[in-house]
Amino acid sequence: MLAVHLKDGRVEVKRQPLPRVPTGFARIRLLAAGICSTDLELQRGYYGFRGVPGHEFVGEVTEAEDASWIGQRVAGEINLACRKCEWCARGLGRHCPRRTVLGIVRHPGAFREFLTLPLDNLHRVPASIPTEHAVFIEPVTAACEILDQIKIPKQERVAVLGDGKLGLLIAQVLHAHGARVQLFGRHREKLRIADRVGISTELAGKKLPERSFPIVVDATGSAEGLRTAISMCVPRGTVVMKSTVHGLVSIDTAPAIVNEITLVGSRCGRFEPALKLLASGKVRVGDLISEQFPLSRAPEAFARAGTKGVLKVLLHA
Amino acid sequence: MLAVHLKDGRVEVKRQPLPRVPTGFARIRLLAAGICSTDLELQRGYYGFRGVPGHEFVGEVTEAEDASWIGQRVAGEINLACRKCEWCARGLGRHCPRRTVLGIVRHPGAFREFLTLPLDNLHRVPASIPTEHAVFIEPVTAACEILDQIKIPKQERVAVLGDGKLGLLIAQVLHAHGARVQLFGRHREKLRIADRVGISTELAGKKLPERSFPIVVDATGSAEGLRTAISMCVPRGTVVMKSTVHGLVSIDTAPAIVNEITLVGSRCGRFEPALKLLASGKVRVGDLISEQFPLSRAPEAFARAGTKGVLKVLLHA
Repeated sequence: MLAVHLKDGRVEVKRQPLPRVPTGFARIRLLAAGICSTDLELQRGYYGFRGVPGHEFVGEVTEAEDASWIGQRVAGEINLACRKCEWCARGLGRHCPRRTVLGIVRHPGAFREFLTLPLDNLHRVPASIPTEHAVFIEPVTAACEILDQIKIPKQERVAVLGDGKLGLLIAQVLHAHGARVQLFGRHREKLRIADRVGISTELAGKKLPERSFPIVVDATGSAEGLRTAISMCVPRGTVVMKSTVHGLVSIDTAPAIVNEITLVGSRCGRFEPALKLLASGKVRVGDLISEQFPLSRAPEAFARAGTKGVLKVLLHA
Repeated sequence: MLAVHLKDGRVEVKRQPLPRVPTGFARIRLLAAGICSTDLELQRGYYGFRGVPGHEFVGEVTEAEDASWIGQRVAGEINLACRKCEWCARGLGRHCPRRTVLGIVRHPGAFREFLTLPLDNLHRVPASIPTEHAVFIEPVTAACEILDQIKIPKQERVAVLGDGKLGLLIAQVLHAHGARVQLFGRHREKLRIADRVGISTELAGKKLPERSFPIVVDATGSAEGLRTAISMCVPRGTVVMKSTVHGLVSIDTAPAIVNEITLVGSRCGRFEPALKLLASGKVRVGDLISEQFPLSRAPEAFARAGTKGVLKVLLHA
């Protein structure tokens, strides 16, 4: 089968044998996968990654002990937890210190014709979600996670900073939740995607409103994003940190302390709410797909995904 | 009367007329005041401060419309709020955007023989609190504020980083609350102050426990403090930011995001719980007093307060 490999900054497509299926695991034939910013960081050599990347995917189960899974179209949770530690016991396997992570930490990823995951990690994808859209389930969980972490009353004013893929998904999820979202970004054409679903948007100039929003989500992916978010947040407000920036971020902690702002680190979350939002059509992801490539053209796909202005690039088997 | 002035890094003692007493204000004769790290920062020219510093004090009311205040020994809240904005309406005058702040922002401070504050800012000091101890009411509110912001169950394990004045007060307040506090510091003799009230302490070497505490309070006053606190905190845990470090602090936000840590900015708080703790003797501050000087020797007092290893330096009129 074909598999995409990252090594020393290069993207290579190799032939390799089918993966073996451990007890409790399923073998899944890839239907489509999405290239995420994390994949681009892995390519650049962050975290010393080598191997098969990819963690946003939809596939079809081709082998599993429990035959009811065979033929099912599935998405999968990316953390493979130990199931024995206190985190796992508390239902927080996503934070298990011994976990491996699909395509990120010691478990080969989804950018290959067949992948494996524990059956417990799989979710059936409802028929109302097209395969190309189902690729977004994992990133939508990252947006939904915010609602699991902090209480956002209906009609609450929320600023979302960043009109990249994640910012656009977060804005939509919070908008669907009933918050009054204002999305700040630097790209008119990306903001238009949010405009179309009725989200208020603003082309971010130099002067952003200070001390204005009770909740600010930083999804800029840039080091300045957090500083800007803190300055836009009202005293006693909450800043959600969604930008995983590699390396050190310099912030002036004094305003966060003087204004008693709470900063909440937030990453991916539960699949259930994401599946519901995509199935209901309340979050629309079609506009976020920039291009699609077969696995065999993965090097080209990575290059496109890393190009300014490009949103989601899909790979299909 | 005598008043301490800061100007271009110099500490001067000047004679000046008694302050006038606006409607609703009291004139207060200084009994004792404490030099805080913020005062040393003001001396260094941070925030472009010029004038009379000082915000930790205890005094005796000598003039007020309401005669019942005359002769009362008082401490005072340092924020002079506008009383008209939405923050003031919500009882959060401490965050009023138009506030002035005693000895910090546009209201002359307490390092003078007589000061003024609105009567609404004053709290009577119970007889069981000696004058020298009452100086600590304001910094103890900063420790108590943590309990107003986050829920700390009894017996919860809490790490406090920093054995300076604030760290020692925070450790005591959280210990009195019933938390299992572990205080990490670099000074054996300062840690001993916490030891004596039954707090577990640890001389911080190079290797600190990682992912170990559900709650970590950074009171190091150093730029590395926050990074260390994040690394010591368990996933989904809380880091309380108490170190106002001037300038930018570089942190690696990735672990805070991956481990979904919540960072809470925290400053001074309500006076009531601080008064109770000091009156009951549950928080002991006598050991924190390093030296005392009359106002006339303020330059010497500031120099001592800025000397490594020195804890609280008091000024008295």
